[in-house]
Amino acid sequence: MIVEFSDIIAAQKRIAGVVRHTPLLSPIHEAPPSQARFYYKCEHLQRGGAFKMRGAYNKITSISEERRRYGVVAFSSGNHARAVATAASLLGIHAKIVMPQDAPQNKIAATREVGAEIILYDRYKEDRAAIAQEICDRENRTLVPPFDDPYIIAGQGTIGLEIDEQADHLDFLVAPVGGGGLMAGTAVALVEKRPNLKFIAAEAASANDTYLSMKKGERVEIPVPQTLADGMQVTSPGILTFEIMKDLLQEVVLVSEQEIVDSLYQIASTIRQVIEPTSAVAVAAAKKIAAANPGAHIAVILSGGNIDLQKYHSLVASRLD
Amino acid sequence: MIVEFSDIIAAQKRIAGVVRHTPLLSPIHEAPPSQARFYYKCEHLQRGGAFKMRGAYNKITSISEERRRYGVVAFSSGNHARAVATAASLLGIHAKIVMPQDAPQNKIAATREVGAEIILYDRYKEDRAAIAQEICDRENRTLVPPFDDPYIIAGQGTIGLEIDEQADHLDFLVAPVGGGGLMAGTAVALVEKRPNLKFIAAEAASANDTYLSMKKGERVEIPVPQTLADGMQVTSPGILTFEIMKDLLQEVVLVSEQEIVDSLYQIASTIRQVIEPTSAVAVAAAKKIAAANPGAHIAVILSGGNIDLQKYHSLVASRLD
Repeated sequence: MIVEFSDIIAAQKRIAGVVRHTPLLSPIHEAPPSQARFYYKCEHLQRGGAFKMRGAYNKITSISEERRRYGVVAFSSGNHARAVATAASLLGIHAKIVMPQDAPQNKIAATREVGAEIILYDRYKEDRAAIAQEICDRENRTLVPPFDDPYIIAGQGTIGLEIDEQADHLDFLVAPVGGGGLMAGTAVALVEKRPNLKFIAAEAASANDTYLSMKKGERVEIPVPQTLADGMQVTSPGILTFEIMKDLLQEVVLVSEQEIVDSLYQIASTIRQVIEPTSAVAVAAAKKIAAANPGAHIAVILSGGNIDLQKYHSLVASRLD
Repeated sequence: MIVEFSDIIAAQKRIAGVVRHTPLLSPIHEAPPSQARFYYKCEHLQRGGAFKMRGAYNKITSISEERRRYGVVAFSSGNHARAVATAASLLGIHAKIVMPQDAPQNKIAATREVGAEIILYDRYKEDRAAIAQEICDRENRTLVPPFDDPYIIAGQGTIGLEIDEQADHLDFLVAPVGGGGLMAGTAVALVEKRPNLKFIAAEAASANDTYLSMKKGERVEIPVPQTLADGMQVTSPGILTFEIMKDLLQEVVLVSEQEIVDSLYQIASTIRQVIEPTSAVAVAAAKKIAAANPGAHIAVILSGGNIDLQKYHSLVASRLD
C-alpha cells in the first residue's frame, strides 16, 4: 500500500503536542433510537481551524535537517497554506505559499500573519503546481503538496485513529473530498480496525471529480468548480489518494449548493458550531446516508471552520428567511 | 459548609453516563505568550444545551422512590426548565414547569417536547415561587429549585471537577451569575484544589443583584432586569448561593449589552461556537480581567447555547455592520 497503518501511527507520534486531539460531538438533543445518530469530528477546532495542520506538520518534520534550511513551498486555496505556514514557523523553517488571487481574503491575511511569504496567481490562467515547482527548483526548497503525498495522507489519517478511540459502533464515516488526502488517510487508519465501516466521500455537485473518477475507474479532470465549498476547488483527485479511495470507498455522495447552506444552518442549530461550507458538504451527504439507513451510526468529519463571518452570517440568514 | 467538596464528588457519580463531560476549548489561533490565554468550558454543548442538566439530574435522582411518584415542579426562565423536564423524563417522573409567558419561544417549545406540562405566568405581576409552591403543596410534588438547593449547587459544581482535570495552570475562573448555583458550585469544587485560583462572577450591568449584594455584604433585591442575558433575569442571588459566593468570590464584573453582543461575535470568530447571551456575559467579563492581568490564564464557563438562531444572527449581524 502507498500508506500503511504503521505510517499513520508514526505520524501520530510526530505530531503529538503540536496538533490537537479534537472533540467528537453529538447533537445537543439526543435522537430517538429509531433515528440515525451523528458523531461530528471537530477538525474546525483544530489548531489553525482545519485538519490540514496534521498532514502539513507530519510532512515538514520529515524533511532532513540539511534540506530544512532552504525552506518549503506550498500551493493551496487556503487551509493547507495556513497550516504549512504555521508548521514551518513552529519548526523555524521559511515558507513560500502560492495562493490564488481570489482566495478568501481572511485566509490570505491569516497565512501572511503566520510569517509566510505569499505568491499570488490567477487560478483560471496559471498552473500553481508549475509555479511552485519552479520555485523549488530555483531555490532548492521542498514542496509540501496539499494532498498527494504519503506523509500528508498519513498525517490526515491520524483523525481516523482519534475517531476509533472516541466512538463506539459506527456504520458510516463521511468526509468531504477535495484532493482526497483526508478521506484516503482516514480510511487507511480505520479499514482494518473497523472492517464493517463504510467510507463515504462527499462532494459538491459541481466539484464531482472524485465521483466521476470512481465511476470511470480512473482519474477524471474537470474544469475549476464553482462552489461555496472552496476547499473543493480541485480539478481531479490525487494520484496516490485516488489509488487508495478506489479500493476503500463505498460511495461518493453529491450535494447541491442549497444543501450546503442548509447544513451550515443545521450545524449551528444542532451542535452550535460555526463551520465552513466544505465541512457542510459532508453534513449534507451524511443526511442523505441517514435517510437511506434508518438508525445508522454516522461519523462526519467537519474539516474546517475558516469562513469569513460576514459571509457565513449572510449565508445562514438566507436560510432563516 | 452548605455544600462540601464530597457532595460534588457524590454528584459526579450520580450524574455519570447521563450528563456529558464537555470539552475545554482554546482559541483556534494560539495567542502569543504575552497575552492572556483563554480556556472555554463548553456547557453549551452539554446535553440539552446548558449546564442545568447537572444540577437538575443530581437533585431528581436524590428524591426517594416513594416521593417520585407524585412528580416534580420547577420554575425557570428556560434552561433549568428544560433540564428538569429531561431529567424527570429519563427517570420516568412527571414534571410540571412554571415558565414566564415571555420566555423565548424555542425554550418553551423545547420543554414541552420533552414531555413536561407547562404552566405559564406573568413575570412582572405574579410570583413564580409561590405558584410552584402551591402546586407542590396541593399535589405532593417535590420542588426542583433553579439554584438555591445543595443538590443543585453540588451538581453544577461537577463542572469544576472537570475543569480541574482538563486545565493546567489557571489564574482566574469566570462564570456568569444568575441565581449563583453555577458560580457557587464550581468555586466549592475548586477552592481547595486550586488555592490561588480567583473566582470572578460576571453579570450584565442591569442584572447586578450579586454585585450589589457583595458590596453590601447581604442579599439585595433588584427589579426584574431587562437584558439580552435571559439566564440572568433573577432579582437576587439565592440564600445558599450567596452564603458561598460571599466567602469565595474575588470580584463581580459588570458588562454592558453592547459588550454582550461583541462577545457573541468574538466567540463565533475565535472558537467557532454559537452561544447564548448569558454565556457571552462571562466572555465579556473575562476580556476585562485579561486586560488588567497580562498573560493570565483564564477559564471561562460558557453556560449555554440555547438561543433562537434568528435572534442570534440578527445580534451578530448588527456587530458586523
